[in-house]
Amino acid sequence: MDLKNLENLAKLVRYYILISTTEAGTGHPTSSLSATDLMVTLMFGSFFKADLNNPENINNDRLIFSKGHASPLLYSLYAAAGKVSEEELKTLRKFGSRLEGHPTMEFPYTEAATGSLGQGLSIGVGMALNAKLEKLDHQTFVLMGDSEVAEGSVWEALALATHYKLDNLVGIIDVNRLGQRGETLLGHDTKTYQDRVEAFGWKSWVIDGHDIPKIWETMKKIQEDRSGMPKMIIAKTLKGKGVSFLENMDGWHGKAVPADKLEEAIKEIGEFDKVVGKVVLPSVIARPRSGAAISAKSGSRIMSGMTKYKIGDIVATRKAYGNILAQLVKANPNVVVLDAEVSNSTMSETVKKEVPEKFFEMYIAEQNMVGAALGFSRRGKIPFVSTFAAFFSRAFDQIRMSQYSNSNIKFVGSHAGVSIGEDGASQMALEDIAMFRTLHEGVVLYPSDAVSTERLSLLAAEHLGNVYLRTTRAETPVIYNSDEEFKIGGFKKHVSSIKGQVSRVVVIGAGITLHESLKAQQQLMEEEVSIDVIDLYSIKPIDHEGLTKTVKDSQAIITVEDHYEEGGIGEAVRTALSGINIPIHSLAVRKMPKSGKPAELLGYEEIDSQAIINLVKRISKVKRSS
Amino acid sequence: MDLKNLENLAKLVRYYILISTTEAGTGHPTSSLSATDLMVTLMFGSFFKADLNNPENINNDRLIFSKGHASPLLYSLYAAAGKVSEEELKTLRKFGSRLEGHPTMEFPYTEAATGSLGQGLSIGVGMALNAKLEKLDHQTFVLMGDSEVAEGSVWEALALATHYKLDNLVGIIDVNRLGQRGETLLGHDTKTYQDRVEAFGWKSWVIDGHDIPKIWETMKKIQEDRSGMPKMIIAKTLKGKGVSFLENMDGWHGKAVPADKLEEAIKEIGEFDKVVGKVVLPSVIARPRSGAAISAKSGSRIMSGMTKYKIGDIVATRKAYGNILAQLVKANPNVVVLDAEVSNSTMSETVKKEVPEKFFEMYIAEQNMVGAALGFSRRGKIPFVSTFAAFFSRAFDQIRMSQYSNSNIKFVGSHAGVSIGEDGASQMALEDIAMFRTLHEGVVLYPSDAVSTERLSLLAAEHLGNVYLRTTRAETPVIYNSDEEFKIGGFKKHVSSIKGQVSRVVVIGAGITLHESLKAQQQLMEEEVSIDVIDLYSIKPIDHEGLTKTVKDSQAIITVEDHYEEGGIGEAVRTALSGINIPIHSLAVRKMPKSGKPAELLGYEEIDSQAIINLVKRISKVKRSS
Repeated sequence: MDLKNLENLAKLVRYYILISTTEAGTGHPTSSLSATDLMVTLMFGSFFKADLNNPENINNDRLIFSKGHASPLLYSLYAAAGKVSEEELKTLRKFGSRLEGHPTMEFPYTEAATGSLGQGLSIGVGMALNAKLEKLDHQTFVLMGDSEVAEGSVWEALALATHYKLDNLVGIIDVNRLGQRGETLLGHDTKTYQDRVEAFGWKSWVIDGHDIPKIWETMKKIQEDRSGMPKMIIAKTLKGKGVSFLENMDGWHGKAVPADKLEEAIKEIGEFDKVVGKVVLPSVIARPRSGAAISAKSGSRIMSGMTKYKIGDIVATRKAYGNILAQLVKANPNVVVLDAEVSNSTMSETVKKEVPEKFFEMYIAEQNMVGAALGFSRRGKIPFVSTFAAFFSRAFDQIRMSQYSNSNIKFVGSHAGVSIGEDGASQMALEDIAMFRTLHEGVVLYPSDAVSTERLSLLAAEHLGNVYLRTTRAETPVIYNSDEEFKIGGFKKHVSSIKGQVSRVVVIGAGITLHESLKAQQQLMEEEVSIDVIDLYSIKPIDHEGLTKTVKDSQAIITVEDHYEEGGIGEAVRTALSGINIPIHSLAVRKMPKSGKPAELLGYEEIDSQAIINLVKRISKVKRSS
Repeated sequence: MDLKNLENLAKLVRYYILISTTEAGTGHPTSSLSATDLMVTLMFGSFFKADLNNPENINNDRLIFSKGHASPLLYSLYAAAGKVSEEELKTLRKFGSRLEGHPTMEFPYTEAATGSLGQGLSIGVGMALNAKLEKLDHQTFVLMGDSEVAEGSVWEALALATHYKLDNLVGIIDVNRLGQRGETLLGHDTKTYQDRVEAFGWKSWVIDGHDIPKIWETMKKIQEDRSGMPKMIIAKTLKGKGVSFLENMDGWHGKAVPADKLEEAIKEIGEFDKVVGKVVLPSVIARPRSGAAISAKSGSRIMSGMTKYKIGDIVATRKAYGNILAQLVKANPNVVVLDAEVSNSTMSETVKKEVPEKFFEMYIAEQNMVGAALGFSRRGKIPFVSTFAAFFSRAFDQIRMSQYSNSNIKFVGSHAGVSIGEDGASQMALEDIAMFRTLHEGVVLYPSDAVSTERLSLLAAEHLGNVYLRTTRAETPVIYNSDEEFKIGGFKKHVSSIKGQVSRVVVIGAGITLHESLKAQQQLMEEEVSIDVIDLYSIKPIDHEGLTKTVKDSQAIITVEDHYEEGGIGEAVRTALSGINIPIHSLAVRKMPKSGKPAELLGYEEIDSQAIINLVKRISKVKRSS
């Protein structure tokens, strides 16, 4: 290996980092400079194997910048590889540039959008698991900052990587001692990093992160290592390395070198040639497979595998989910299933039993589970990720970030709402709809029976993008024929069959509250009062035109949901129906939830059939007297 | 010590666990039985010091059941201490009982509501930090399950406890090997638990968790330990211990012994006497202080400390927050400040500089930060917790759970919305309002200038309950006089001053979009078009009667927010104004956000003054033509 060439490339990359950030007038040059020697050696030292003309090549090594604020380094590496021009580097952080403040999918070499710290290693775990599953021999590298190692998600990832013996995963911690506002938790105490990482079952090397021969030698050892363990380089570095007035100095985080000091800074780097670095090609060059394409066909292929539920059968939607999931996994090679040690509750255990190689037990570590799901998704898989709906809140940041990586994750949350009963508030998801509704172009589905669960699970798999599916703990009757059609953005109308009477009130429910609405409809029919009931199984998107047309002649709308009012079904409906002037009344969870029987709690929160009946009557009375 | 007595009490507690769960027909007896010997020895072996007649005594030792599903054990311990009757035990999990499925504040000995795993140690960190701060010599004990140790939050707490040398914190891991659906990540590998815990700087003991003399001896060592380190007992136990057909058996998680097997189970425990156990009193018995009472007076006391901003001054609200926070900490001894290594961005660094003993650097570990804040809150403190608003999503589960502990936490999120500019989507909070709005009885405040920031910060401190305050990165002009009054649930109206013209459109903004609204108002005035602008600084609660009254004569309402539409200001307004029939138009972040200058991004997302002007004109045109 020509190490001189690496030294030269490191200088060139430092130059690119400085000019791009100074031009932007903002950015993180010092956090980039500390990791430069590490990344240059990795990328151009013949360790990193990738077909740069085809970033999606499934045999490419993967490099995740978990310390996303070092994006100037990422872009500069690809500039040094001839894939970004010096001119484009100067568009860094500008509106419309591919080179955003933190890496996004606009830049084709970004493995995953980062910038919320401590998430990259989990994404790497997902990619490394995928490589094992597919018997691909590529490696996954993750560059981390030292501050982010305080994030618990990193330790979740470390533990899981050990459990799954991910010897194809290499972490690199850039221990540059300084965080945004001073020294990090462990400063330059690389020994403690090593003790912790090794206690978590990783093989590790503490090195000087600016000693290129040493870095090269260590990476060589890693390539040759046959311990079967995941590997970590703990590199002692200096923030701002290469420019004396930045080096190891406080107060330079997230600051560009002022234009009038740029020349001086560049001079400090030393002389270098503007030559392009060479990245080794992977041994097998393949075209990427399109997960989406395979997915689109899966639905019809597994129709024969669908359970034949009969109207009136009593089946919890979580059970119906488990049943169809196993069929889906068998039919679509891209579907993988992850669960947080509750597969016997979410019912994803069907896959564990029937297709164990596609089931990944992620233990009680939801952040890492979602991060790993993103890793799978980025490699073309369709991960179905399940836990109690309430516990997805644990991974909201990972869920939030995933949307910026064009993710295609299916989140399935069981045990929604107060209807779970005795376990009490801690286990009740009452904010999950609000959370998942915030996802840009995300889909939120909430089936009410076994048939709709099967159909919506298939639609989720076929949809390209994030989907949240909310299942119910309690057993509920099947209300749809097995050939009923559903669509993302659809709803179903259940009309009262009182002859000659037009319903003045429309009740909109979903999941468990749809059944309460239908019960109310039945009971009111006995009193010669008709209401229409809408099953809003697609909470996002809502077919607002169709819904508007359906309800436009009614005099009042009632929404009823087993969820807090804020951000829930009621507000989704208010937004969807903003074009018409019909009063909307919301029934939602408004009292501090507690333990009790499901029926007691639905009654207590006034979201049961009786509450609906009472409200319908109150509305009708007001109408009559007015 | 009479260890025979402990053996007897352990049998009595096992009896209580069995009868209460069988009566409930639901619950987690096996997870309770595994920790029984540990907890009985702690509580009745003269280690736990508490005045049980006064659970809020500040000198009481604290015992947090992080494995909240072992609530039958918690209740049974207090039954064995004579504080819960056998009759009440049989109300377990029933509607209206103090003995809920997972511990809640209904039960006076619950330190914090638990049930979402992996949170208890962080709460313990907060309580232990508080004891250090107040120079109290009580200890804080945390009982954890083994499954939950996979949660990253546990490792965040371990690292921070070491950093702050919390030798008053004792963790106990009940390694019963079995999770909900089979073996845990580490099974009975207590050695690996120990290696990891010790690498994180804790002193630890691996013991047989059913050997009462050994447990007693270990706890004695812990009491006598002067290492200055936090301490962990890693106890190898058997799930279901004491009943042979439950012991170490799979398939018994979360299941009560059937009624027809209860007698057999009780017989297996062996003979015991129903005697009451004795808990040692703390050496100093004190009445609890009321944090709320002190808080209520603080506002007026620090009015003199308030900054004198003049209208037109350019001050970022995050800076105004930092200024008032230091005054608040000086005026109110109950206020503590926690930050996730970004205090120079959130501006809480003022406290670090001026009152360092009240500032707690929590590093980049938001889950543990929020958990610790709950610990402080439960001990009467008013924690102000700050980070980038986007990164509170990392702790959503902790935030969610805190509401069930009657928490009094002030969350302050800076860097909200696309207006942060170049850093890009990962750093932009666009779902924080939706998230915090879901909190039961939570308050969401969003000041627009320095004056309102100071006032709202004081109101937040005085309010008993969770408050979220959203601050802005960008500098904005002061628009309120320094004696302007604000209130939780209030809003401000800025009317157009075109003589004789009544505004037909009301624009509702907050924070950065209020300034855009006011800009639009100014510009439209030049075109002889008047609009009213409302500063909705209190997003939750909204004074819906006052707001309804204010807007009721307008012909259209426009909401404009630097946040995704779902769960945001627009939907909050729709819900608040559900009583009137005026069209509401929402301007919100709808396109995939990216890097750019703040003004470019506000324009791109169509939430700037120009977008408001365009919409006002479009609405007016429609009106005129209709």
